Amino acid sequence: MSFELDTTLATDSLLLGTNGDFMLRLANDSRYIWLLLIPTIAGVTEIHQLSPATRHQLSDHSANLSAILMAEFNGDKFNIAALGNQVAQLHIHHIVRKTSDPAWPNPVWGHSPAVPYSAEQRQAIVSRLQRILSL
Amino acid sequence: MSFELDTTLATDSLLLGTNGDFMLRLANDSRYIWLLLIPTIAGVTEIHQLSPATRHQLSDHSANLSAILMAEFNGDKFNIAALGNQVAQLHIHHIVRKTSDPAWPNPVWGHSPAVPYSAEQRQAIVSRLQRILSL
Repeated sequence: MSFELDTTLATDSLLLGTNGDFMLRLANDSRYIWLLLIPTIAGVTEIHQLSPATRHQLSDHSANLSAILMAEFNGDKFNIAALGNQVAQLHIHHIVRKTSDPAWPNPVWGHSPAVPYSAEQRQAIVSRLQRILSL
Repeated sequence: MSFELDTTLATDSLLLGTNGDFMLRLANDSRYIWLLLIPTIAGVTEIHQLSPATRHQLSDHSANLSAILMAEFNGDKFNIAALGNQVAQLHIHHIVRKTSDPAWPNPVWGHSPAVPYSAEQRQAIVSRLQRILSL
Protein backbone atom coordinates (compact mmCIF):
# COMPACT_ATOMS: atom_id res chain seq x y z
CA MET A 1 0.00 0.00 0.00
CA SER A 2 1.50 3.33 -0.99
CA PHE A 3 0.93 6.60 0.85
CA GLU A 4 -1.83 8.84 -0.45
CA LEU A 5 -2.50 12.19 1.16
CA ASP A 6 -5.97 12.48 2.68
CA THR A 7 -8.18 14.63 0.45
CA THR A 8 -9.25 16.99 3.26
CA LEU A 9 -5.64 17.65 4.20
CA ALA A 10 -4.82 18.20 0.52
CA THR A 11 -7.67 20.70 0.15
CA ASP A 12 -7.06 22.66 3.34
CA SER A 13 -3.29 23.06 3.13
CA LEU A 14 -0.47 23.98 0.75
CA LEU A 15 2.62 21.87 0.05
CA LEU A 16 5.87 23.30 1.39
CA GLY A 17 8.13 20.34 0.70
CA THR A 18 9.12 16.81 1.59
CA ASN A 19 12.05 15.52 3.60
CA GLY A 20 12.67 11.79 3.75
CA ASP A 21 9.57 10.13 5.19
CA PHE A 22 7.85 13.45 5.98
CA MET A 23 5.78 15.98 4.10
CA LEU A 24 5.43 19.53 5.32
CA ARG A 25 2.32 21.57 4.52
CA LEU A 26 0.95 24.98 5.44
CA ALA A 27 -2.65 25.24 6.67
CA ASN A 28 -4.47 27.67 4.41
CA ASP A 29 -5.44 30.08 7.19
CA SER A 30 -3.67 33.41 6.90
CA ARG A 31 -4.29 34.28 10.55
CA TYR A 32 -1.76 31.78 11.89
CA ILE A 33 1.61 30.32 11.02
CA TRP A 34 0.24 26.79 11.12
CA LEU A 35 2.18 23.91 9.64
CA LEU A 36 1.34 20.22 9.29
CA LEU A 37 4.09 17.61 9.54
CA ILE A 38 2.88 14.40 7.91
CA PRO A 39 4.72 11.06 7.87
CA THR A 40 4.32 9.73 4.32
CA ILE A 41 3.75 6.18 5.47
CA ALA A 42 0.54 4.42 4.43
CA GLY A 43 -2.06 3.50 7.02
CA VAL A 44 -0.61 5.32 10.04
CA THR A 45 -3.04 7.14 12.32
CA GLU A 46 -1.12 7.25 15.63
CA ILE A 47 2.43 8.30 16.52
CA HIS A 48 2.96 5.06 18.47
CA GLN A 49 2.45 3.09 15.24
CA LEU A 50 5.68 4.55 13.83
CA SER A 51 8.95 2.69 14.32
CA PRO A 52 11.14 4.07 17.13
CA ALA A 53 13.62 5.41 14.55
CA THR A 54 10.89 7.24 12.61
CA ARG A 55 9.43 8.56 15.87
CA HIS A 56 12.78 10.03 16.83
CA GLN A 57 13.13 11.58 13.36
CA LEU A 58 9.67 13.06 13.83
CA SER A 59 10.78 14.50 17.18
CA ASP A 60 13.90 15.99 15.56
CA HIS A 61 11.98 17.53 12.63
CA SER A 62 9.36 18.86 15.02
CA ALA A 63 11.89 20.50 17.35
CA ASN A 64 13.75 22.02 14.42
CA LEU A 65 10.51 23.42 13.01
CA SER A 66 9.47 24.82 16.37
CA ALA A 67 12.75 26.59 17.05
CA ILE A 68 12.95 28.12 13.56
CA LEU A 69 9.31 29.24 13.41
CA MET A 70 9.28 30.72 16.92
CA ALA A 71 12.39 32.76 16.14
CA GLU A 72 11.30 33.86 12.65
CA PHE A 73 7.75 34.83 13.59
CA ASN A 74 8.43 36.00 17.13
CA GLY A 75 5.89 33.65 18.71
CA ASP A 76 4.66 33.80 22.29
CA LYS A 77 3.93 30.05 22.56
CA PHE A 78 4.17 27.06 20.30
CA ASN A 79 1.36 24.51 19.98
CA ILE A 80 2.08 20.97 18.80
CA ALA A 81 -0.71 18.42 18.48
CA ALA A 82 -1.61 15.08 16.96
CA LEU A 83 -5.41 14.93 17.15
CA GLY A 84 -6.93 13.24 14.10
CA ASN A 85 -10.52 13.22 15.32
CA GLN A 86 -11.72 14.66 12.02
CA VAL A 87 -9.01 13.35 9.67
CA ALA A 88 -7.51 10.11 10.93
CA GLN A 89 -4.39 10.12 8.71
CA LEU A 90 -1.53 11.08 11.04
CA HIS A 91 -0.67 14.76 10.78
CA ILE A 92 0.99 16.78 13.50
CA HIS A 93 -0.04 20.41 13.88
CA HIS A 94 2.73 22.96 14.53
CA ILE A 95 1.35 26.41 15.27
CA VAL A 96 3.02 29.66 16.24
CA ARG A 97 0.72 31.29 18.78
CA LYS A 98 0.63 34.97 19.65
CA THR A 99 -1.26 36.55 22.51
CA SER A 100 -2.77 38.82 19.83
CA ASP A 101 -4.09 36.02 17.60
CA PRO A 102 -7.86 35.50 17.19
CA ALA A 103 -8.15 32.29 19.23
CA TRP A 104 -5.69 33.10 22.04
CA PRO A 105 -5.53 31.62 24.70
CA ASN A 106 -7.78 28.88 23.37
CA PRO A 107 -6.77 26.21 20.83
CA VAL A 108 -7.16 27.21 17.18
CA TRP A 109 -9.22 24.16 16.16
CA GLY A 110 -12.90 24.93 15.84
CA HIS A 111 -12.47 28.55 16.91
CA SER A 112 -13.62 30.21 13.69
CA PRO A 113 -13.56 29.62 9.93
CA ALA A 114 -10.19 29.83 8.18
CA VAL A 115 -9.26 32.99 6.31
CA PRO A 116 -7.44 31.63 3.24
CA TYR A 117 -4.32 33.31 1.90
CA SER A 118 -4.76 35.44 -1.21
CA ALA A 119 -2.72 34.30 -4.24
CA GLU A 120 -0.10 36.95 -3.50
CA GLN A 121 0.06 36.20 0.21
CA ARG A 122 0.32 32.52 -0.53
CA GLN A 123 3.30 32.92 -2.82
CA ALA A 124 5.07 35.14 -0.30
CA ILE A 125 4.52 32.94 2.76
CA VAL A 126 5.32 29.68 0.96
CA SER A 127 8.58 31.15 -0.38
CA ARG A 128 9.52 32.55 3.01
CA LEU A 129 8.86 29.26 4.79
CA GLN A 130 10.71 27.23 2.16
CA ARG A 131 13.69 29.54 2.54
CA ILE A 132 13.90 29.52 6.33
CA LEU A 133 13.22 25.78 6.53
CA SER A 134 15.69 24.99 3.71
CA LEU A 135 13.07 23.12 1.67
CA MET B 1 16.73 26.44 39.86
CA SER B 2 14.86 23.31 40.91
CA PHE B 3 11.65 22.08 39.31
CA GLU B 4 8.39 23.08 40.97
CA LEU B 5 5.08 21.90 39.60
CA ASP B 6 2.81 24.72 38.42
CA THR B 7 0.03 25.29 40.95
CA THR B 8 -2.78 25.03 38.36
CA LEU B 9 -1.46 21.68 37.13
CA ALA B 10 -1.14 20.52 40.74
CA THR B 11 -4.73 21.52 41.51
CA ASP B 12 -6.34 20.11 38.37
CA SER B 13 -4.61 16.72 38.26
CA LEU B 14 -3.62 13.74 40.41
CA LEU B 15 -0.13 12.29 40.73
CA LEU B 16 0.31 8.86 39.16
CA GLY B 17 4.07 8.55 39.49
CA THR B 18 7.48 9.70 38.33
CA ASN B 19 9.93 8.05 35.98
CA GLY B 20 13.39 9.58 35.58
CA ASP B 21 12.97 13.16 34.34
CA PHE B 22 9.20 12.82 33.90
CA MET B 23 6.12 13.08 36.10
CA LEU B 24 2.85 11.48 35.09
CA ARG B 25 -0.46 12.91 36.28
CA LEU B 26 -4.14 12.24 35.65
CA ALA B 27 -6.42 15.17 34.78
CA ASN B 28 -9.22 15.25 37.32
CA ASP B 29 -12.03 14.88 34.78
CA SER B 30 -13.81 11.56 35.06
CA ARG B 31 -15.24 11.80 31.53
CA TYR B 32 -11.90 11.12 29.84
CA ILE B 33 -8.76 9.06 30.31
CA TRP B 34 -6.55 12.13 30.16
CA LEU B 35 -2.97 12.02 31.32
CA LEU B 36 -0.31 14.72 31.56
CA LEU B 37 3.34 13.87 30.93
CA ILE B 38 5.53 16.55 32.49
CA PRO B 39 9.31 16.83 32.19
CA THR B 40 10.53 17.71 35.69
CA ILE B 41 13.09 20.20 34.41
CA ALA B 42 12.91 23.77 35.67
CA GLY B 43 12.03 26.59 33.29
CA VAL B 44 11.01 24.53 30.24
CA THR B 45 7.97 25.69 28.28
CA GLU B 46 8.60 24.20 24.82
CA ILE B 47 9.59 20.70 23.67
CA HIS B 48 12.39 22.11 21.52
CA GLN B 49 14.07 23.46 24.68
CA LEU B 50 14.72 19.89 25.86
CA SER B 51 18.00 18.20 24.98
CA PRO B 52 17.76 15.76 22.04
CA ALA B 53 18.23 12.83 24.45
CA THR B 54 15.41 14.01 26.72
CA ARG B 55 13.20 14.67 23.67
CA HIS B 56 13.70 11.12 22.49
CA GLN B 57 12.92 9.80 25.99
CA LEU B 58 9.77 11.91 25.90
CA SER B 59 8.85 10.35 22.55
CA ASP B 60 9.45 6.86 23.96
CA HIS B 61 7.40 7.47 27.11
CA SER B 62 4.63 9.05 25.05
CA ALA B 63 4.43 6.16 22.58
CA ASN B 64 4.44 3.62 25.40
CA LEU B 65 1.65 5.49 27.18
CA SER B 66 -0.40 5.77 23.99
CA ALA B 67 -0.16 2.09 23.11
CA ILE B 68 -1.02 0.90 26.63
CA LEU B 69 -3.90 3.33 27.18
CA MET B 70 -5.48 2.72 23.77
CA ALA B 71 -5.44 -1.04 24.35
CA GLU B 72 -6.62 -0.90 27.97
CA PHE B 73 -9.45 1.58 27.41
CA ASN B 74 -10.39 0.54 23.88
CA GLY B 75 -9.94 4.03 22.44
CA ASP B 76 -11.05 5.16 19.00
CA LYS B 77 -8.36 7.84 18.63
CA PHE B 78 -5.50 9.17 20.70
CA ASN B 79 -4.88 12.90 21.14
CA ILE B 80 -1.41 14.16 22.07
CA ALA B 81 -0.76 17.87 22.52
CA ALA B 82 1.68 20.39 23.94
CA LEU B 83 -0.27 23.64 24.10
CA GLY B 84 0.58 25.68 27.18
CA ASN B 85 -1.45 28.76 26.30
CA GLN B 86 -2.98 28.81 29.78
CA VAL B 87 -0.21 27.15 31.80
CA ALA B 88 3.20 27.73 30.24
CA GLN B 89 5.09 25.01 32.15
CA LEU B 90 5.62 22.21 29.62
CA HIS B 91 3.03 19.46 29.99
CA ILE B 92 1.98 17.11 27.23
CA HIS B 93 -1.64 16.00 27.13
CA HIS B 94 -2.34 12.33 26.34
CA ILE B 95 -6.03 11.63 25.92
CA VAL B 96 -7.94 8.49 24.96
CA ARG B 97 -10.77 9.64 22.73
CA LYS B 98 -13.97 7.76 22.05
CA THR B 99 -16.59 8.60 19.47
CA SER B 100 -19.04 8.49 22.37
CA ASP B 101 -17.21 11.02 24.59
CA PRO B 102 -18.78 14.44 25.31
CA ALA B 103 -16.47 16.53 23.15
CA TRP B 104 -16.07 14.19 20.16
CA PRO B 105 -14.99 14.99 17.45
CA ASN B 106 -13.78 18.30 18.84
CA PRO B 107 -10.78 18.79 21.12
CA VAL B 108 -11.48 18.39 24.84
CA TRP B 109 -9.96 21.73 25.90
CA GLY B 110 -12.58 24.35 26.60
CA HIS B 111 -15.46 22.07 25.68
CA SER B 112 -17.19 21.97 29.06
CA PRO B 113 -16.30 22.05 32.77
CA ALA B 114 -14.49 19.04 34.21
CA VAL B 115 -16.45 16.44 36.15
CA PRO B 116 -14.05 15.50 38.96
CA TYR B 117 -13.63 11.90 40.09
CA SER B 118 -15.35 10.94 43.35
CA ALA B 119 -13.01 9.72 46.09
CA GLU B 120 -13.88 6.11 45.26
CA GLN B 121 -13.51 6.58 41.52
CA ARG B 122 -10.22 8.33 42.04
CA GLN B 123 -8.73 5.52 44.05
CA ALA B 124 -9.86 2.94 41.50
CA ILE B 125 -8.61 4.76 38.40
CA VAL B 126 -5.28 5.78 39.95
CA SER B 127 -4.61 2.19 41.06
CA ARG B 128 -5.59 0.81 37.67
CA LEU B 129 -3.37 3.26 35.80
CA GLN B 130 -0.42 2.68 38.13
CA ARG B 131 -0.78 -1.05 37.59
CA ILE B 132 -1.00 -1.03 33.80
CA LEU B 133 1.73 1.60 33.49
CA SER B 134 3.99 -0.18 36.02
CA LEU B 135 4.32 2.94 38.20
